Amino acid sequence: MKNLDFAKTTLKDGFWRFYSNLDRSSVVKHVYDRFKETGRFDALRCMWREGEPNKPHIFWDSDVAKWIEGVAFLIEMSPEPEWEALVDEMVDNIAANQRADGYFNSYFLTVEPSKIFCNRDWHELYCVGHMIEAAIAYHKATGKDKLLNCVLKNVDMIYRVFVEEQSAAFVTPGHEEIELALIKLYDYLGNEKHLELARFFLDNRGNNEKDKENAHPHFNSAYFQSNLPLRELSEAVGHSVRACYLYTAMAMLAKRDCDTEMKAACDRLFDDIVNRKMSVTGGIGADHRGETFSCKYDLPNSDTYNETCAAISLAMFAGAMQELEVDSRYGDIIERVFYNGFISGLSLDGERFFYTNPLEIDRKKYARSTYQPICERVKVFSCSCCPPNVVRMLASISRYMYTVDGDAVYCNQFAESETKLTVGGKEAVLTQKTDYPLNGKITFNYSGEPMTLYVRVPDWCVEFEGKTENGFVKFNLTDGDSVTLDLPMRVHFIEANPYAQDNSGRYAVQRGPIVYCMEELDNGENLRDITLIENSTIKVIKEEGIPAPVIYIGAERRPKTDRLYRLKTTDRVGFTARLIPYFAFANRAASDILVWTMVK
Amino acid sequence: MKNLDFAKTTLKDGFWRFYSNLDRSSVVKHVYDRFKETGRFDALRCMWREGEPNKPHIFWDSDVAKWIEGVAFLIEMSPEPEWEALVDEMVDNIAANQRADGYFNSYFLTVEPSKIFCNRDWHELYCVGHMIEAAIAYHKATGKDKLLNCVLKNVDMIYRVFVEEQSAAFVTPGHEEIELALIKLYDYLGNEKHLELARFFLDNRGNNEKDKENAHPHFNSAYFQSNLPLRELSEAVGHSVRACYLYTAMAMLAKRDCDTEMKAACDRLFDDIVNRKMSVTGGIGADHRGETFSCKYDLPNSDTYNETCAAISLAMFAGAMQELEVDSRYGDIIERVFYNGFISGLSLDGERFFYTNPLEIDRKKYARSTYQPICERVKVFSCSCCPPNVVRMLASISRYMYTVDGDAVYCNQFAESETKLTVGGKEAVLTQKTDYPLNGKITFNYSGEPMTLYVRVPDWCVEFEGKTENGFVKFNLTDGDSVTLDLPMRVHFIEANPYAQDNSGRYAVQRGPIVYCMEELDNGENLRDITLIENSTIKVIKEEGIPAPVIYIGAERRPKTDRLYRLKTTDRVGFTARLIPYFAFANRAASDILVWTMVK
Repeated sequence: MKNLDFAKTTLKDGFWRFYSNLDRSSVVKHVYDRFKETGRFDALRCMWREGEPNKPHIFWDSDVAKWIEGVAFLIEMSPEPEWEALVDEMVDNIAANQRADGYFNSYFLTVEPSKIFCNRDWHELYCVGHMIEAAIAYHKATGKDKLLNCVLKNVDMIYRVFVEEQSAAFVTPGHEEIELALIKLYDYLGNEKHLELARFFLDNRGNNEKDKENAHPHFNSAYFQSNLPLRELSEAVGHSVRACYLYTAMAMLAKRDCDTEMKAACDRLFDDIVNRKMSVTGGIGADHRGETFSCKYDLPNSDTYNETCAAISLAMFAGAMQELEVDSRYGDIIERVFYNGFISGLSLDGERFFYTNPLEIDRKKYARSTYQPICERVKVFSCSCCPPNVVRMLASISRYMYTVDGDAVYCNQFAESETKLTVGGKEAVLTQKTDYPLNGKITFNYSGEPMTLYVRVPDWCVEFEGKTENGFVKFNLTDGDSVTLDLPMRVHFIEANPYAQDNSGRYAVQRGPIVYCMEELDNGENLRDITLIENSTIKVIKEEGIPAPVIYIGAERRPKTDRLYRLKTTDRVGFTARLIPYFAFANRAASDILVWTMVK
Repeated sequence: MKNLDFAKTTLKDGFWRFYSNLDRSSVVKHVYDRFKETGRFDALRCMWREGEPNKPHIFWDSDVAKWIEGVAFLIEMSPEPEWEALVDEMVDNIAANQRADGYFNSYFLTVEPSKIFCNRDWHELYCVGHMIEAAIAYHKATGKDKLLNCVLKNVDMIYRVFVEEQSAAFVTPGHEEIELALIKLYDYLGNEKHLELARFFLDNRGNNEKDKENAHPHFNSAYFQSNLPLRELSEAVGHSVRACYLYTAMAMLAKRDCDTEMKAACDRLFDDIVNRKMSVTGGIGADHRGETFSCKYDLPNSDTYNETCAAISLAMFAGAMQELEVDSRYGDIIERVFYNGFISGLSLDGERFFYTNPLEIDRKKYARSTYQPICERVKVFSCSCCPPNVVRMLASISRYMYTVDGDAVYCNQFAESETKLTVGGKEAVLTQKTDYPLNGKITFNYSGEPMTLYVRVPDWCVEFEGKTENGFVKFNLTDGDSVTLDLPMRVHFIEANPYAQDNSGRYAVQRGPIVYCMEELDNGENLRDITLIENSTIKVIKEEGIPAPVIYIGAERRPKTDRLYRLKTTDRVGFTARLIPYFAFANRAASDILVWTMVK
């Protein structure tokens, strides 16, 4: 069972078409401009000298690599000569400056050549991992092998240093990523050595002294997912992006090695995340210090971290799991992440980003000395891992739509689209006609040899009454068939587990896959004091500028008073609350926001 | 109008008798033992040398002074020969080591003699202020003038250095306290010079460059209440204890100088605190970093600071205000503070203390990296300002009961007690017979010349229907009169201002002056998920070991589930919730607690 290559699917219209167009027309350029300004691309020339501006950083190569990977995905779908020329120039710089033994990192080669592979947390292998993914994507898109040859040389050197000589100051990377990249490389070229190196990094994690001795001054082994051997893990801990990159690789290896012990660990970890440590928006990493998972059910709204990269990494983990097992829950999580906590990281004009994605902003508290989330999207941040991650994810988002298993096709995600399949050894075409997520009606048209289509019934669709297998409804399709699934899409009020006490007595509004929020701009101040009225008239309206409908619902709030404390009152002021999709918050002006609201 | 000397009133029984007995029988001794162990008393010998244990600290003298003041209050009410002998020994050490010019601080004389009066934040004048109060109390209790002479000599030196020579590195103290102490000294001895020195420190605060140049590395001028000249202040800002010590002195000076501008500032500051920056328990200082006031209406429950000393300082401020103006609001605030956020700082056995007094403890969050309140009372803390503050406040608590204005007597607080008054130039006796706060029935018996008694009708008594003046009900009493006031005392559900969003949709349970809380020990985990049922049978029961009744009330909670998110449910599990007085929390074992709860 395998996720269908994103390039087999062309998005024709609707939500994800809007965003993939935005990616090509705006996001990729704005990320390029920022990176150019800050010297990230020029750093590849390895000419920076002390005293000059734009000093390189240990993880700049990963930013560049993610951007290249994203551009490669765009090129594969339709030519981008100007971007391609720029990538070729970057590749030339990498090739020109790669050390004879294969090592490349623009920071260490330029700033601290004596510190190579000295510190586990210095992101060197992480950067190589992203460069591997970029090289694969760029070779697949253009047939050009220069970057691929660079990374192969680099990987050979890493194999020698870490596996054969064991001469580095540590055994496994402090920031995981290279593991999943190596498995992708193995899938792409079929070289066992690459799978073996990935296996080495996974098998030797959390069970060796050398990594412990190379410890971080502030962070413990749990921060690095090195507290236990991987097959013994049952709790998602530590830096959430690193964790999910690692878990993704674990799931990928479990599949390729038929490693049931590793799969069991992946099952436990996935369950721990989605049932105890995930915001209703699909965001993860609740503890802003260290960007880490917090304790189970600790899901604060204002000071949660929910990094955009963390949402992406959870989707990647779920994507790997859906290749291991037929279960609609993986598609459910991917959908929750994509439509909420992931896409919230990008502004509607494709020019500005959120690194963190809080579920509540109360600007009156900005005078406090404690951590407060920012309320305005930014064009640049010094630690800029998220924007290029958005570029590459949006350019390849259709990868998560279909999983194929012989002549069975599982539809996990919905979008107006056309997909090329191979069924019974012959080419087949499956199209989706839908306005999803405006409504839940999806029509599939098929031409090709007989096949079985399994369509995910989303977890939000509690009103669905048909028969399902593992959460999928089954259709046997033959050439010319057209089937329609009409998923009832109502406004729902969602409650959190009683242990998630921050949200006790509060509810999230969700319609289809979209979680909603209130903004002060629409609803006035003191959002937490607003109570939505469940049985009032609810209007769902598609408005200009937001690729999902807005909700209007009856609400009430307490009148203002000068008293700080008084007897419980009952007088309320009624009004119509405007709820916008969570992902669309902070696209107008600075405003308070709130997801979890009172409902009566 | 003046608060009646505490020594005129003898507490006979009830709530405050319980605590003043506890003070004499336990608290004073346990604080002594801790201070002895940690070398605070021995530091007065000024013999500590580098390398020895128990290195003195810049504010240790203030800890000792508060303890001496408390002991003096106890002695004044009834002899304590052993304590008195120990105080005499301390006074001998102070006298023996006081510098010829009058300076005394056991830290600076011993550890950093070259740093005297170099740093505004080093608490030297603060320590002298407390020593002045101790000297007055000890002289008044015993007639012994040795400590009083020491402080007079010290004050003369301070007058010379700060007013005449202006040779210190700063103009006004970084930690206020000496201002109110100097005014007390003026009241006690009538020496204008002492009032003048207090006036100097107040008039020159927030309007001079020298203090600004002597700035703190982390804290701004607002932290030190030096952002504006005092008469222009309208917002309570900065370190809350320092602030209220200052505001107390401002109110005292306003009264003695008939300074209407200063009184207006006091009115604005008091209003800002009690209407925007005070927990329902009377606690203040919501921002744990810096122990400062937060922005208006920012009243977090779990990570609020609410230092015990801050509650004491607010009561002192209100006590000074009630000498300036006849208004029951001052007695209301003093009562709220005393019965809740102040006395919560002391364990029921008088042996352990809270420095901070949170309104919510969720131990499941202890795994978070962010600030979390401690859930167990401690015997020692390195910064131990609160315990001796509790000793002196409990020993003199009856100071706040009556305010006299000629032959008019204002009763601000209630307790079974006997009070000696002077009415029409003759001695008179006023007694209170009451079980307050078990119920609201208070009988006053009077013997003496005709007088007018004004009795405060508490703000919580919304059911009171009689006629009041400025919140007081008036009785004309002649010899032998007995009058009874029966204040209806019901269980109330209190709501906070809509701007205090942390408590939106939540209510505090209050009966009479007592605010209640739930403990996990009685009610199980996930306290925030409990909803109290307003119209269920409510039982108010006096139980052993707690000097105020406990409340039993119908409640419900959601059943447990494995789901993290699901559609809004309506099934609930009913049970009887046990609420204990807030001040009694954390007296059994470690437990979660919660004040603000849901009510339906």
